[in-house]
Amino acid sequence: MDRWFASDNNAGVHPEVVQAISEANAGHCPAYGAAGEPTIDPYTAEAEGAFRRHFGEGTEVYFVYNGTAANVLGLRAVMDSWQALVTADIAHLNVHECGAVESFSGTKLLLVPSSDGKITPEGVERHLVGIGDEHCVQARAVSITQATECGTVYTPEEIAPLAEFAHERGMLLHMDGARISNAAASLGTSLRGITRDVGVDVLSFGGTKNGTMFGEAVVFMDRGLAPDFKYVRKQGMQLHSKMRFIAVQFTALLSGDLWLRNARHANAMASLLAERVRDIPAVEITQKRQANAVFARLPGDRIPALQQAFPFHCWNERTGEVRWMTSFDTTGEDVEDFVRSVREVLG
Amino acid sequence: MDRWFASDNNAGVHPEVVQAISEANAGHCPAYGAAGEPTIDPYTAEAEGAFRRHFGEGTEVYFVYNGTAANVLGLRAVMDSWQALVTADIAHLNVHECGAVESFSGTKLLLVPSSDGKITPEGVERHLVGIGDEHCVQARAVSITQATECGTVYTPEEIAPLAEFAHERGMLLHMDGARISNAAASLGTSLRGITRDVGVDVLSFGGTKNGTMFGEAVVFMDRGLAPDFKYVRKQGMQLHSKMRFIAVQFTALLSGDLWLRNARHANAMASLLAERVRDIPAVEITQKRQANAVFARLPGDRIPALQQAFPFHCWNERTGEVRWMTSFDTTGEDVEDFVRSVREVLG
Amino acid sequence: MDRWFASDNNAGVHPEVVQAISEANAGHCPAYGAAGEPTIDPYTAEAEGAFRRHFGEGTEVYFVYNGTAANVLGLRAVMDSWQALVTADIAHLNVHECGAVESFSGTKLLLVPSSDGKITPEGVERHLVGIGDEHCVQARAVSITQATECGTVYTPEEIAPLAEFAHERGMLLHMDGARISNAAASLGTSLRGITRDVGVDVLSFGGTKNGTMFGEAVVFMDRGLAPDFKYVRKQGMQLHSKMRFIAVQFTALLSGDLWLRNARHANAMASLLAERVRDIPAVEITQKRQANAVFARLPGDRIPALQQAFPFHCWNERTGEVRWMTSFDTTGEDVEDFVRSVREVLG
Amino acid sequence: MDRWFASDNNAGVHPEVVQAISEANAGHCPAYGAAGEPTIDPYTAEAEGAFRRHFGEGTEVYFVYNGTAANVLGLRAVMDSWQALVTADIAHLNVHECGAVESFSGTKLLLVPSSDGKITPEGVERHLVGIGDEHCVQARAVSITQATECGTVYTPEEIAPLAEFAHERGMLLHMDGARISNAAASLGTSLRGITRDVGVDVLSFGGTKNGTMFGEAVVFMDRGLAPDFKYVRKQGMQLHSKMRFIAVQFTALLSGDLWLRNARHANAMASLLAERVRDIPAVEITQKRQANAVFARLPGDRIPALQQAFPFHCWNERTGEVRWMTSFDTTGEDVEDFVRSVREVLG
Repeated sequence: MDRWFASDNNAGVHPEVVQAISEANAGHCPAYGAAGEPTIDPYTAEAEGAFRRHFGEGTEVYFVYNGTAANVLGLRAVMDSWQALVTADIAHLNVHECGAVESFSGTKLLLVPSSDGKITPEGVERHLVGIGDEHCVQARAVSITQATECGTVYTPEEIAPLAEFAHERGMLLHMDGARISNAAASLGTSLRGITRDVGVDVLSFGGTKNGTMFGEAVVFMDRGLAPDFKYVRKQGMQLHSKMRFIAVQFTALLSGDLWLRNARHANAMASLLAERVRDIPAVEITQKRQANAVFARLPGDRIPALQQAFPFHCWNERTGEVRWMTSFDTTGEDVEDFVRSVREVLG
Repeated sequence: MDRWFASDNNAGVHPEVVQAISEANAGHCPAYGAAGEPTIDPYTAEAEGAFRRHFGEGTEVYFVYNGTAANVLGLRAVMDSWQALVTADIAHLNVHECGAVESFSGTKLLLVPSSDGKITPEGVERHLVGIGDEHCVQARAVSITQATECGTVYTPEEIAPLAEFAHERGMLLHMDGARISNAAASLGTSLRGITRDVGVDVLSFGGTKNGTMFGEAVVFMDRGLAPDFKYVRKQGMQLHSKMRFIAVQFTALLSGDLWLRNARHANAMASLLAERVRDIPAVEITQKRQANAVFARLPGDRIPALQQAFPFHCWNERTGEVRWMTSFDTTGEDVEDFVRSVREVLG
Repeated sequence: MDRWFASDNNAGVHPEVVQAISEANAGHCPAYGAAGEPTIDPYTAEAEGAFRRHFGEGTEVYFVYNGTAANVLGLRAVMDSWQALVTADIAHLNVHECGAVESFSGTKLLLVPSSDGKITPEGVERHLVGIGDEHCVQARAVSITQATECGTVYTPEEIAPLAEFAHERGMLLHMDGARISNAAASLGTSLRGITRDVGVDVLSFGGTKNGTMFGEAVVFMDRGLAPDFKYVRKQGMQLHSKMRFIAVQFTALLSGDLWLRNARHANAMASLLAERVRDIPAVEITQKRQANAVFARLPGDRIPALQQAFPFHCWNERTGEVRWMTSFDTTGEDVEDFVRSVREVLG
Repeated sequence: MDRWFASDNNAGVHPEVVQAISEANAGHCPAYGAAGEPTIDPYTAEAEGAFRRHFGEGTEVYFVYNGTAANVLGLRAVMDSWQALVTADIAHLNVHECGAVESFSGTKLLLVPSSDGKITPEGVERHLVGIGDEHCVQARAVSITQATECGTVYTPEEIAPLAEFAHERGMLLHMDGARISNAAASLGTSLRGITRDVGVDVLSFGGTKNGTMFGEAVVFMDRGLAPDFKYVRKQGMQLHSKMRFIAVQFTALLSGDLWLRNARHANAMASLLAERVRDIPAVEITQKRQANAVFARLPGDRIPALQQAFPFHCWNERTGEVRWMTSFDTTGEDVEDFVRSVREVLG
């Protein structure tokens, strides 16, 4: 039973999540989350309640299958095709969704160069040109990733100005929260403290990278933002029939502190890893270790040897930068085994 | 622990499928089915093998999240936006996908009126007009549903002429096999006997309605039909990260005879139900009972009372036609309880 | 110099329109209609004024290139992709736009069978099912063609109930007015009398079939309906740079009575044609002659011979129904020549 | 009768083009270019012949309405939605089409920074990452603009390596030739010498900026590249009914040397303008003057005053860079008048 440092989605499912799924597997239940049906799906209702306890009244949550869909449909619901999205050049949305935003919604992305995954109002402003000119797309939303693709974390003090900047210009702030729990755990804040409270309008809330099997959530902080989202989701091929099995996973995460335990643990393992490789001369850590990733530059020719025992991704083949991810199930022993391997291969 | 007659997707998950999921939940595994990765995901490879044993060499299978996506993406891969799909007016694709085919692929549907869910070459031919005329969409594929939305089943002898008709005109035959196992069980054929062997080109293979938790499959009978489908799937928001958990469900269904046991049982329960209500004067059975559905006309004013204890769908509010579905977990006792209720309410 | 009965778009351009184009061909002029520019394009402003005189204050007009675009973009601006359009099965939008509505806007068409090109509230109502059900598209607009594809004309008394029916259900009424001038001429009404005054919300106003060279107009009867249409038009590839040359054509049509003269003449020629063939036994007139078309059933085997001298379209090859169109430039002599040919070939 | 320096599309139509339109305005003619019709449209056939004489046998030309459509549809025909287009960051396609490429075709643009409008193989190569990885769009084509948006011109020696680079990687080379005639005139080459002969696969051939009224052309250098383009054009809302009026404009341009005379003249006027302002201290010319544009940096606060008499575009409000365009109808006197104004305002 191997555990690697390739990605938090290479991990399996947390036992408490599996348990919740098993317990929900009894008898019949209205399909599709029973949205708008006379008969209620109690599992989905309970999960929605768990979200509302975290994010507050007036928010609305919808479950979809994966993070691609959470981002694409959440944005589709609040943007027209001639409106543009401003985001970091290294945003997952831009680099690793195979053009899903452009293809599904027709949206142009306006890119802000970023070296640590973060963007600022200054970076966004550069793209606010041609306002009111029909030849130009009109920036409608800003998207940030929390934690970022570089493993760094936006503080509330960094998010609030982005939201304020956006709102002053009639724009919205979207957050790709594939690893939002890791960010909150890193900062010691509530989930709400880095989203609704600091101006985030639409959130993709990630579960899969934090111990669930499938399913992500789109959270609209203001119910009025996307009153017709149910149609967008269905037409977008993202309405699950046996919805209870997504719902109970989120109830398992959010009704207690599982979301936090898993994220804290993954973060701690990344911290341990960073600590233990810091004194290896051939390893240069390239990003602040804030969530559950360690980015480092290695001698390029040694990377393949190291990947053999412990698969991981080479982030940038030209520079030899690699990404090591930890997850809820990484153990201290896994880290020590890996560090030993790093020392051997690079030593 | 209630079981209803509303839909086979109101059922839970078969214990053998749950067991397979649990067993796969150990250690790390390459994500995304490891398509194109050096490291293999053995679970996905095994499931692909199970499909190839059923459908033969040269076929290619891709897992997606749900039936909407299986249909939409499978068709998208083989059609251009100016090509049209000919299908039954009551096809799920047409009526209950919220326009996903039109929206995602830009495809126009050309509808063939049908009273039992089936269509024939004669019905398709009516739409073969304006061939080569740039003002008109050009019919590119025919889609049939097996078992149909009316619970009826196409025989191999009905499918083959549709395929032949299509192929002679440079068209393809698509099958929405959301309940293909029920059809094969009803006919006593192999899965291949009602698909590849009789000319089906693209198949949506359903699992959810036959006892799985999530995930459906797109099967291309000729690998060359859609060599770039992996991009279509990813861009179409349907690539699961923890793919092993879809894969093992299909392995559980297809490596032994679970697919057949489940389907046979559901069919048998529908047969029992049809048998037991046949002599109730207020119940008029309206479609041949061939798969796991019973369609019947009831006095419209009694339907709500009957739905209270046993939720089910009113198929046509104007005519009082209802649909009763059975599933892998329906018991003979469930049927008897329900029939008793029917007699009481309608008696 | 031949003139045929194939289509009113086989005709050339009316001399007064050519004259207007020539006069506008002097010096420089702000491009793109100067929408939102400090410098005004006086030609476009004048044409907009001409439209407002016909349709009243509060209306907004945008010029596009052709009728396909006028229909597709006008509808795109007021519908979301999960909303459906109800229209006649023989509507040009459905049959002869190569699926442009589905492809560009993702819109599903819900078809009402029609034998004379017209639809009624009863026909529309059949499609108002699954309201509020996320599995079903939600009907958002009704589209009618005036004059219809069969050469018939909706009276104001037929349009008003359709508008009322739509508005009561939160829907809009769209009119494909490719031949609206012929309809108004036939009815003896103003253009406004068969559009805004009877509840039409969005109008495609046709010029090409009534003597212009290129360019059609989208008229929103309430400016608030599509405040962002300029982006829809530009993104939709329909913003002309040298806009003055579209604008002056509409000024030529609408500032005086050229629109009416042309339409009346074309109608009169169709009336003459219908009159003169009425007593030919082999010719059965199949639609009421109300605008500038005559529909007739002929012996199928004689059609090709007749088309040789005077090209025209066979409307339905199975029934031998043909369509003879007249245009602003058809002469009484053309009609007599053609009738002589009909008599010879069919006699 | 004013002439400005704002854009070559602020000019009117060359008299020879108007003449050609007038001459074609006689009698009836098959609509839609008679594509696929038994009756030929002789005007369209003649224009197609003119194109073939310039670009050679085996090429195929289609007329559309404007440059946006020529670019978008020409690319749509040879790319799937998950394939990407590599182009300059300042390409018109990227900046001034209101996201039409992304919206209509779902295509992601991969941007190469450029200061003079040109890109090189090195710039393109940076985007060739993630090849074969389903998470990443796959670069399929490179688009260059000739003459560029900065008024510069690619030499044949610069184009050929881009084509070679692309073809070696299974990619295509697209050229936005909105001002291709100006480029050829500047280089002293044939039209073919900077397109087909150096590896261009798909060309948007511009007419409007070189003296026509409306209509552009998509030229496929290999007929097999887009055998179904007629459907793409019709569905893309770009099929003109009275096609002869587009066709004859191109015949007027291309059957003799009007395309060259107009372009040469416009270029000469830009050359004169550049010459005459070169010694004005407050004017810094910022781009090589190669086609019909002069780019210059002016004191930002004086720009509005200068624009009053002679409208032109401020290219970059932050740097004070302006664009002065000349056109086929600019006279030497216009230039002198303008230079006088520049001296007065900036002096």
